[in-house]
Amino acid sequence: MPATDHTPTQHPVSVLGLGLMGSALASALLKAGHPTTVWNRTAAKTGPLVAQGATPADTPAAGVTASPLVIACLTTNDSVRELFEPLAAELSGRTLVNLTNGTPSQARELAAWAREHGIAYVDGGIMAVPQMIAGPGAYILYSGDEEAYARHRDTLAALADTKWVGADAGLAALWDLSLLTGMYGMGLGVAQAYALVGSAGVPAKDFAPLLLDWVVAMTQGIVPGTAEAIDSGQHLTDVSNLEMNLAVLPNFTETLAEHGVSDQLFTPLRALLERAVAEGYGADGLSRMVDLLKAPEPLRTP
Amino acid sequence: MPATDHTPTQHPVSVLGLGLMGSALASALLKAGHPTTVWNRTAAKTGPLVAQGATPADTPAAGVTASPLVIACLTTNDSVRELFEPLAAELSGRTLVNLTNGTPSQARELAAWAREHGIAYVDGGIMAVPQMIAGPGAYILYSGDEEAYARHRDTLAALADTKWVGADAGLAALWDLSLLTGMYGMGLGVAQAYALVGSAGVPAKDFAPLLLDWVVAMTQGIVPGTAEAIDSGQHLTDVSNLEMNLAVLPNFTETLAEHGVSDQLFTPLRALLERAVAEGYGADGLSRMVDLLKAPEPLRTP
Ligand SMILES: NC(=O)c1ccc[n+]([C@@H]2O[C@H](COP(=O)([O-])OP(=O)(O)OC[C@H]3O[C@@H](n4cnc5c(N)ncnc54)[C@H](OP(=O)(O)O)[C@@H]3O)[C@@H](O)[C@H]2O)c1
Ligand SMILES: NC(=O)c1ccc[n+]([C@@H]2O[C@H](COP(=O)([O-])OP(=O)(O)OC[C@H]3O[C@@H](n4cnc5c(N)ncnc54)[C@H](OP(=O)(O)O)[C@@H]3O)[C@@H](O)[C@H]2O)c1
Repeated sequence: MPATDHTPTQHPVSVLGLGLMGSALASALLKAGHPTTVWNRTAAKTGPLVAQGATPADTPAAGVTASPLVIACLTTNDSVRELFEPLAAELSGRTLVNLTNGTPSQARELAAWAREHGIAYVDGGIMAVPQMIAGPGAYILYSGDEEAYARHRDTLAALADTKWVGADAGLAALWDLSLLTGMYGMGLGVAQAYALVGSAGVPAKDFAPLLLDWVVAMTQGIVPGTAEAIDSGQHLTDVSNLEMNLAVLPNFTETLAEHGVSDQLFTPLRALLERAVAEGYGADGLSRMVDLLKAPEPLRTP
Repeated sequence: MPATDHTPTQHPVSVLGLGLMGSALASALLKAGHPTTVWNRTAAKTGPLVAQGATPADTPAAGVTASPLVIACLTTNDSVRELFEPLAAELSGRTLVNLTNGTPSQARELAAWAREHGIAYVDGGIMAVPQMIAGPGAYILYSGDEEAYARHRDTLAALADTKWVGADAGLAALWDLSLLTGMYGMGLGVAQAYALVGSAGVPAKDFAPLLLDWVVAMTQGIVPGTAEAIDSGQHLTDVSNLEMNLAVLPNFTETLAEHGVSDQLFTPLRALLERAVAEGYGADGLSRMVDLLKAPEPLRTP
């Protein structure tokens, strides 16, 4: 049946793994009109998706062979290997898009295994929670087999914005972990800030608007300039250098101690700042810390 | 000479300390039309301000007695004490607004000293760099003598938006240090993220837009909900709980190790997450970490 002008082309897709995230992905594919086959270890989780029009598969093999595009979303890549290694023959000639969270090494190992078996492998990192799937702001990082990605990109776009990061299958996981790392730092800073101001009885709701504006403004102020400094190797700053930041650290640690609040966030910061100054980089900005984090040995003799 | 409709009332102000920040403050006061007297230990720094219309004072005492409102902006509160303690008699009956960075304890000690000598003391925390003074986005936190603050607020508004945080003179420093703490966490996370993605040769400029959008989106997603959870004591989350975050930490530490990048940001994070899970708070969100940071002892027996 030829597609009309108004019907987007429909592509059969299989989704294996229907946890919170896999269910959101399958649901988004169904809403976009793609014939969707679903399988989950605990069969009961197919129910709501079948009600939305999905075809349940009785076995993982049946799930795989139902579509040229197979999306996996399990807890870990160990479960991905456990589930798919026995199905290499069935997967051969198809595309496996693995949206399970993992490390670059795991993604590269899966890509190597897939290549051996004639499976096109694309790894992905979902930068969203399930509630954000198919909504604004969500995107998925992809890396690996670029041809297979290009072939299925329009279908994958039903899940979230797509962002190709390279042919090395490990890159999506690397970008994903790096972005999450940024979030962990921000989360630690926010927790520590609420703890300190809260120790004096300030309600969090009074502090929240200032904290939000401040972290957003500082992020916008710091992230682009740091990128320029990193790429150019020009680390000198005229705004806030590492030596000055080290000098004011006692203001923080003494105040935290007086208020009975842990200062553990400052332990890695102090170590980095002390190393920067000892190695002669006190006049540099944040970008120099990036260099130091990448080099366990002194960058140059002080 | 009576002020016309179009001339805002002009108030004499003295600024002592004309470093990068003090000079920016004095310049903003002059632009707003306030008769401004300036003094700096190294007299040469008065030059550009005198050219803008400031009156130079020959001695700190002359600087103090020139105006009912005296603004101090020195390196540390030690220098503030050194400069102003011999001038208690001259300061008596005037308002001292101290915009030098320090700790809540230092501010409280200065407030106590000022009270003894009949000096109205207001402490402030400048949330801006000198380039931002009198521009959009800059604000200054104030605490201490509320009456004196109210009297001079319109004049102080020439420097930056004003934000009153309470009669305890230490509060401006507390809010200031807490906001900076949030920034340090964000900065560490950003540095670690650039280091990890950069270890694979990804140019920082390619990564920067995603990192910026991500940290801003996560901050906006996390800060307000965390405040609600802190104030209500309801820490359970259905998005990203502490146990899940602990479970995925090896993805980060293993990947950082493989890429030769320091994982020191994760040391305090792991300690906090392990403690949260050990104490039975694994199903809670970030807000529980705030509680744990405030309590060195277990919150309850596991
Ligand atoms: N939730 C989020 O906010 C979010 C955000 C970004 C990325 N992710 C990633 O998405 C992936 C799935 O997360 P989720 O939230 O959907 O987790 P979840 O709700 O816990 O679901 C896990 C899924 O994996 C299946 N599974 C686990 N081990 C299996 C095995 N050995 N064989 C077959 N199936 C197995 C489970 O099957 P059963 O139903 O039979 O247990 C279930 O379908 C994870 O890698 C996660 O890191 C999640
Ligand atoms: N710059 C920023 O981005 C920024 C942002 C927020 C807050 N602040 C705070 O603002 C304050 C001033 O910072 P800044 O950037 O202006 O620093 P700065 O450029 O180093 O200036 C320091 C000033 O303090 C004076 N001073 C130091 N010790 C003194 C003493 N014992 N007696 C008299 N004068 C003394 C210096 O006089 P000389 O000229 O004679 O040395 C100079 O005027 C600091 O507390 C800083 O933390 C700065």
